[in-house]
Amino acid sequence: MRVGPPRTQNDVVERSFWIDSSGRSVPGLLWSPLEAKGPRPLVLIGHGASGSKREGYVTALAAELVRRRGFAAAAIDGPVHGDRRPDSDSVPALVLLEFSQLWAADPDMTDRMVEDWSAALSALQDLDEVGPGPVGYWGLSMGTILGLPFVASDQRVEAAVLGLMGLTGPSRARIALDAPRVRCPVMFVVQWDDELFERAVAAQLFDRLGTSDKRLHAYPGRHSQVPDEAFVASEGFLARYLTGGVR
Amino acid sequence: MRVGPPRTQNDVVERSFWIDSSGRSVPGLLWSPLEAKGPRPLVLIGHGASGSKREGYVTALAAELVRRRGFAAAAIDGPVHGDRRPDSDSVPALVLLEFSQLWAADPDMTDRMVEDWSAALSALQDLDEVGPGPVGYWGLSMGTILGLPFVASDQRVEAAVLGLMGLTGPSRARIALDAPRVRCPVMFVVQWDDELFERAVAAQLFDRLGTSDKRLHAYPGRHSQVPDEAFVASEGFLARYLTGGVR
Repeated sequence: MRVGPPRTQNDVVERSFWIDSSGRSVPGLLWSPLEAKGPRPLVLIGHGASGSKREGYVTALAAELVRRRGFAAAAIDGPVHGDRRPDSDSVPALVLLEFSQLWAADPDMTDRMVEDWSAALSALQDLDEVGPGPVGYWGLSMGTILGLPFVASDQRVEAAVLGLMGLTGPSRARIALDAPRVRCPVMFVVQWDDELFERAVAAQLFDRLGTSDKRLHAYPGRHSQVPDEAFVASEGFLARYLTGGVR
Repeated sequence: MRVGPPRTQNDVVERSFWIDSSGRSVPGLLWSPLEAKGPRPLVLIGHGASGSKREGYVTALAAELVRRRGFAAAAIDGPVHGDRRPDSDSVPALVLLEFSQLWAADPDMTDRMVEDWSAALSALQDLDEVGPGPVGYWGLSMGTILGLPFVASDQRVEAAVLGLMGLTGPSRARIALDAPRVRCPVMFVVQWDDELFERAVAAQLFDRLGTSDKRLHAYPGRHSQVPDEAFVASEGFLARYLTGGVR
């Protein structure tokens, strides 16, 4: 693992990192409180397709978790996204196109991302400012396509926010197999008028989750119109399950 | 309006009241903070069929609103429920049977309950410990069957928790007309495995609500298995909209 120098903004310390995962160099960002030391909850944040680990809602959620809760948070770029690209200034539409093609053509993409998340988690928990605390996952849309299999396979994850996805798409069979293996508490987010993943397929995926400790929050609007309220609820949900007893 | 003597328990003051509504004597309970004086938010709580204004979840929600938020809360008995009955110790199954028959046979039942709520609200806001503050409504199942028309018709209600109901049942046409007239923010609760009001009809009702400021929270389990989490979320939702800016 390589870790870049700290950059502090509004009491949140941000550091770039690169971890090695089966020979791949995976770029990520870590956020932690000022002068953090010793184990604390860590939330892994999976961004959506065409975005990156620097996406506005990713950094905003991370900052809330750090400042309000004293947690650490981390994000890695998804396949063909962000700093995994030679041309990191590609337009979002091109990135989306390439991701969609990969999703359709490369069934191993999910396995690689699961490996990348697990490797990142292990490396991050070796850092002083993170340590072996409770682990949460947050990822909608592509963050669920690639993150649900991670949550299903890595028993270190104790709570997950998933959603904006359904039992559909090229990796549908994989998701259908992995969903019942999700045993941790889940908050599942649905956009009621989602034009990409309709509420009926979203409901099928929610039904199939293996945990009985789950709740579905639906908001009016299209795929990309997730309201602030969903982020506030996410943060409260993760805080409740990763610290115990926080109301 | 007649108001009974205060009875204080755990810093919550409870008083019985009876209001006159078009010649009907309507029995209710008011909860307020110790030595409350001056305007404060008031939440009206509609109980479910076969219950009463003394139902456990009604008094628990009221106590939370009073203690945590400094609000007032009030409940009135529904038609053929609680102290509206000559035999207030009737078994729940008998009350449910009678309510179901009334729902099917007496289309004016809803209008009477709307009148009763409006009369209770006016009378309560004349009391020193309540005053003309913001008003919320909370009612699931029968609390929505009879409460949604009240929320639709009384513009004093600024936020409502509704649910455990769908576009179905004897008053379906009335509910279908009133739902688009609900203009205040709504939190809508669904039990994912509701055996009385299935998720599909619940979704239809949610769709039909006239406000765009709405969210649906669904939890696994049957009609009567609403988890504590839904009450905590209800309380947070009402606090946010009735006090402004409370996160």
